[in-house]
Amino acid sequence: MSANRFTYLGPEGTFTEAALRTLPEAATRELVPMVSVPAALDAVRNGEAAAALVPIENSVEGGVTATLDELASGEPLMIYREVLLPIAFALLVRPGTKLSDIKTVTGHPVAQPQVRNWLRAHLPEAVWESAASNADGARLVQEGRFDAAFAGEFAAATYGLQALVSEIHDAENAETRFVLVGRPARPAAPTGVDKTSVVIWQREDHPGALLELLQEFAARGVNLMLLQSRPTGAGIGNYCFAIDAEGHIADRRVGEALMGLKRICAHVRFLGSYPRAGAGAGDVTPLRPGTSDREFTEASDWLARCQDGRA
Amino acid sequence: MSANRFTYLGPEGTFTEAALRTLPEAATRELVPMVSVPAALDAVRNGEAAAALVPIENSVEGGVTATLDELASGEPLMIYREVLLPIAFALLVRPGTKLSDIKTVTGHPVAQPQVRNWLRAHLPEAVWESAASNADGARLVQEGRFDAAFAGEFAAATYGLQALVSEIHDAENAETRFVLVGRPARPAAPTGVDKTSVVIWQREDHPGALLELLQEFAARGVNLMLLQSRPTGAGIGNYCFAIDAEGHIADRRVGEALMGLKRICAHVRFLGSYPRAGAGAGDVTPLRPGTSDREFTEASDWLARCQDGRA
Amino acid sequence: MSANRFTYLGPEGTFTEAALRTLPEAATRELVPMVSVPAALDAVRNGEAAAALVPIENSVEGGVTATLDELASGEPLMIYREVLLPIAFALLVRPGTKLSDIKTVTGHPVAQPQVRNWLRAHLPEAVWESAASNADGARLVQEGRFDAAFAGEFAAATYGLQALVSEIHDAENAETRFVLVGRPARPAAPTGVDKTSVVIWQREDHPGALLELLQEFAARGVNLMLLQSRPTGAGIGNYCFAIDAEGHIADRRVGEALMGLKRICAHVRFLGSYPRAGAGAGDVTPLRPGTSDREFTEASDWLARCQDGRA
Amino acid sequence: MSANRFTYLGPEGTFTEAALRTLPEAATRELVPMVSVPAALDAVRNGEAAAALVPIENSVEGGVTATLDELASGEPLMIYREVLLPIAFALLVRPGTKLSDIKTVTGHPVAQPQVRNWLRAHLPEAVWESAASNADGARLVQEGRFDAAFAGEFAAATYGLQALVSEIHDAENAETRFVLVGRPARPAAPTGVDKTSVVIWQREDHPGALLELLQEFAARGVNLMLLQSRPTGAGIGNYCFAIDAEGHIADRRVGEALMGLKRICAHVRFLGSYPRAGAGAGDVTPLRPGTSDREFTEASDWLARCQDGRA
Repeated sequence: MSANRFTYLGPEGTFTEAALRTLPEAATRELVPMVSVPAALDAVRNGEAAAALVPIENSVEGGVTATLDELASGEPLMIYREVLLPIAFALLVRPGTKLSDIKTVTGHPVAQPQVRNWLRAHLPEAVWESAASNADGARLVQEGRFDAAFAGEFAAATYGLQALVSEIHDAENAETRFVLVGRPARPAAPTGVDKTSVVIWQREDHPGALLELLQEFAARGVNLMLLQSRPTGAGIGNYCFAIDAEGHIADRRVGEALMGLKRICAHVRFLGSYPRAGAGAGDVTPLRPGTSDREFTEASDWLARCQDGRA
Repeated sequence: MSANRFTYLGPEGTFTEAALRTLPEAATRELVPMVSVPAALDAVRNGEAAAALVPIENSVEGGVTATLDELASGEPLMIYREVLLPIAFALLVRPGTKLSDIKTVTGHPVAQPQVRNWLRAHLPEAVWESAASNADGARLVQEGRFDAAFAGEFAAATYGLQALVSEIHDAENAETRFVLVGRPARPAAPTGVDKTSVVIWQREDHPGALLELLQEFAARGVNLMLLQSRPTGAGIGNYCFAIDAEGHIADRRVGEALMGLKRICAHVRFLGSYPRAGAGAGDVTPLRPGTSDREFTEASDWLARCQDGRA
Repeated sequence: MSANRFTYLGPEGTFTEAALRTLPEAATRELVPMVSVPAALDAVRNGEAAAALVPIENSVEGGVTATLDELASGEPLMIYREVLLPIAFALLVRPGTKLSDIKTVTGHPVAQPQVRNWLRAHLPEAVWESAASNADGARLVQEGRFDAAFAGEFAAATYGLQALVSEIHDAENAETRFVLVGRPARPAAPTGVDKTSVVIWQREDHPGALLELLQEFAARGVNLMLLQSRPTGAGIGNYCFAIDAEGHIADRRVGEALMGLKRICAHVRFLGSYPRAGAGAGDVTPLRPGTSDREFTEASDWLARCQDGRA
Repeated sequence: MSANRFTYLGPEGTFTEAALRTLPEAATRELVPMVSVPAALDAVRNGEAAAALVPIENSVEGGVTATLDELASGEPLMIYREVLLPIAFALLVRPGTKLSDIKTVTGHPVAQPQVRNWLRAHLPEAVWESAASNADGARLVQEGRFDAAFAGEFAAATYGLQALVSEIHDAENAETRFVLVGRPARPAAPTGVDKTSVVIWQREDHPGALLELLQEFAARGVNLMLLQSRPTGAGIGNYCFAIDAEGHIADRRVGEALMGLKRICAHVRFLGSYPRAGAGAGDVTPLRPGTSDREFTEASDWLARCQDGRA
């Protein structure tokens, strides 16, 4: 039954599956790997799944364009959770393979820049060829097509492989952000450490146009956590912007900023307000004076009194 | 009875009385001259008068500080109307006086810079001494203390004088703005050509603090018509600001700007929304896209839908 | 000889004279009282005096419009020094007069609101009539025209009077700011605690026009100390702005802000860079990162390298 | 000899080669395909090539991250030219293949979303597998590994294939932007229709930090053409920004904006000023009043006069 099914970017053994398994709500669901981000999300759109977990941002490679573009277009979806997963690769081989045996290596194209330095240092002669996913690379090693694959260590068992080397990652702090996406509904209540995602399309272009949009957040003390431009498809020079702002749509300062965007943009798509992964109360930007919910409410009451002649 | 009484800055025969008589609502009232702006306004505060007409701004001399300071402090009052009066002086003399007879002239101190060039050209030897008001100057001429007084031509009859010269004004377009002030009540409905007056006190001073205040108007496309700093009395360098903004408090863009000020200022005093004198529909600043009442309402509805999961 | 002559707003015995005598450079000059601010400044313009001291701002009454307007128009002048003088009045009487003898009091119109509360408490029945200056009021008491005058205590000796009461001032911290004005020349070197004065005329009016001007200061971390609108004489709604900014024209951030104003304003009049009175190093607004002279110089050097292909 | 050699993202037959051949300066050079963007650029860095042509932005897929990241890091390079190439795919097959024969198709991963709709309509049953480049896909068809490849029609001859279908592109106006990159040198003189590229790293993060950066452009009327965030590698939430601004570094308004960025950013890398491809004089954003070179020069002269006492 669809309400019990979560899809994810497969195949089995990917980092996405590992991320999904960190979510308590995934423990009792049927987890279904899909061949692509669009496929995972379409299963949600057409009711075959309750939610999908897909990668949205990588600290080395940047935004995952397939996810950004899918969320920005088509039937609306909403983000309910995010997961941050540290990314470290293991070099998976068939049992018995030694480092000196390895002539060919594979892995997802996104993995390649994250292990490039390690390869140069330890396997300078090995030939790289990309696979459709890290897990698919493991499968190809199992089938004997390659000598080794970079993948998550957790994928070894699935494909009968061994981790010859672990914890490979050129960049410190490499991590990937995943989002759990469902059909639109009332966002969960604020936790105090939240994030709000929108995609906006500008109404017109003039010097300072983008500034006016960002001013809607800044004027209300709302911190931006991500600003990612994406082509609209109307040709070079035409962009929409995926924006993550600190706070929850139920926060008055965030709500008023969103209304400001709605008024001055050609289009705004609300993608959800949800708890920030890996952040605690100490990571919240201090409120700028004049931007608390209480102050918004007091200002609203004061305006009503002025309009009634009771100020 | 107080509801039938309007006070004004007297004595009889001042420009203020002339301005008051241009108001239809003054035709059926008892018009009472007062010795000062504070006296005229206190009569309203203590219920002896329904409203007071006082000068607030002169196109040559600038803001009338007594009026600005009285409106900014004490028990709150509200502006209901404004009147613009072109200022031209007549040289009032006792019947029979010739230009060559005039050795001494008087008038309100504010009149002096407005007739300085005329005096230099036509009465270079005459000695000027200030009077408490233009009308009071006329009275002093009547009493024989001075040979001539600068005052409104309409004051001649009151004091048994003649206008020896009319239409004296060094500056082209000299005019004075008067306001009709009453106790706070619900502002009149918008006419489409309105103005809103407030006084604001900043919460703190830092580079860009004033900018943030003005940004509350600019971000919503609200045009400023007046920005007048006034000392708060706490020493040099401490100011409050009297601001006139285009539009009515019932306009959503104006209301939201006022709430923004209320949140970030130490104090905001609403002084009223009222029709702009001497302005028609053609004088209204065109709406910036995204700032109409309709767009505010649509944005508010959209936010509610987002919060309910129906966007 | 004119180089040895300083004029000031007279007559003798005014606060202006007291302020002038606090300046070391005044000790060896001939100090000449003038009947008005324009007269004091015209003596500088036509070479009869090297400089003039005139009041420019009062912490109770606000800007001294005659001074602001004189500096904004006519042949350019420059401010070289400012003086802050605490304002406290003495009640001057003829020797032997007792408080209960006083039926009439006089003083400059600006003095009246500063002693109003004191009068109400101590001489509620006394009749006030304004004099041309505080010192002139003292003279009128000497002549027997009034029973008492509010003036600086230092004026008593000049007019053979006694200070019956001292230190009268309704407002705490009442003070007046005076400026020493001369013909334009190279400003004195920066002291580190400086102020820069300009008058600006906007090129056009549109929502946010004033904001753009202030942005020139804010974008470079330059703090505004005064923003005073003055009518341009072209009718209600037409203003120029007298601005005092923290810092010296020789500071790169101030210089670049002034150039920004020059580019976007219809007209800018530079009124001088001079030491801030009554301020020490501790009163200087901390530099915003990126706005030090060193950083301006480094940025300029970097741009040159980029343009030369050496970055 | 290296000065005669241009590298490009190979292999032969890619859109990059087609773009390179549109440049007159390429006609007399040795054009060398490289296996990757880093390889093409490293050949320039180490002196083996005078310049490299690499894709930087695709109107469907967005920024080419390998190029953006290579330009932002490592030894500095500079952009000298840009080329816009409309992107349309041909379906290349071995001679004699009919549409109904095609069971497997290949192409670069970036091509896939650009032909997805076409595939769904005309070859719904065909299985897609990605190739390292469009040209490499053509080679694999030549070798018999796949039945058809999406590539530029110009690649057919190189690999002995035929274009079964031409002009395939799901999106209207699909185009790719390429840049010709060399070692840093003095930029070419302004043409009047220029673009300036920089990468900036923020100094600190606070609400409005990005706004301050954009304000440096907006305050001087400089239009932004691209704002692309890229991860810095320091973890999720840490970004640098690739910015394309209208105008040339030799334009005063652009130069001052760049100096402003240099002052307030942790780091700025200048990537070049070069003619805008596909744009004429009519595409230039009208100058905002106060931002012409003449006005900058006049303001600079005025400041010098003020500092010398000659204003």
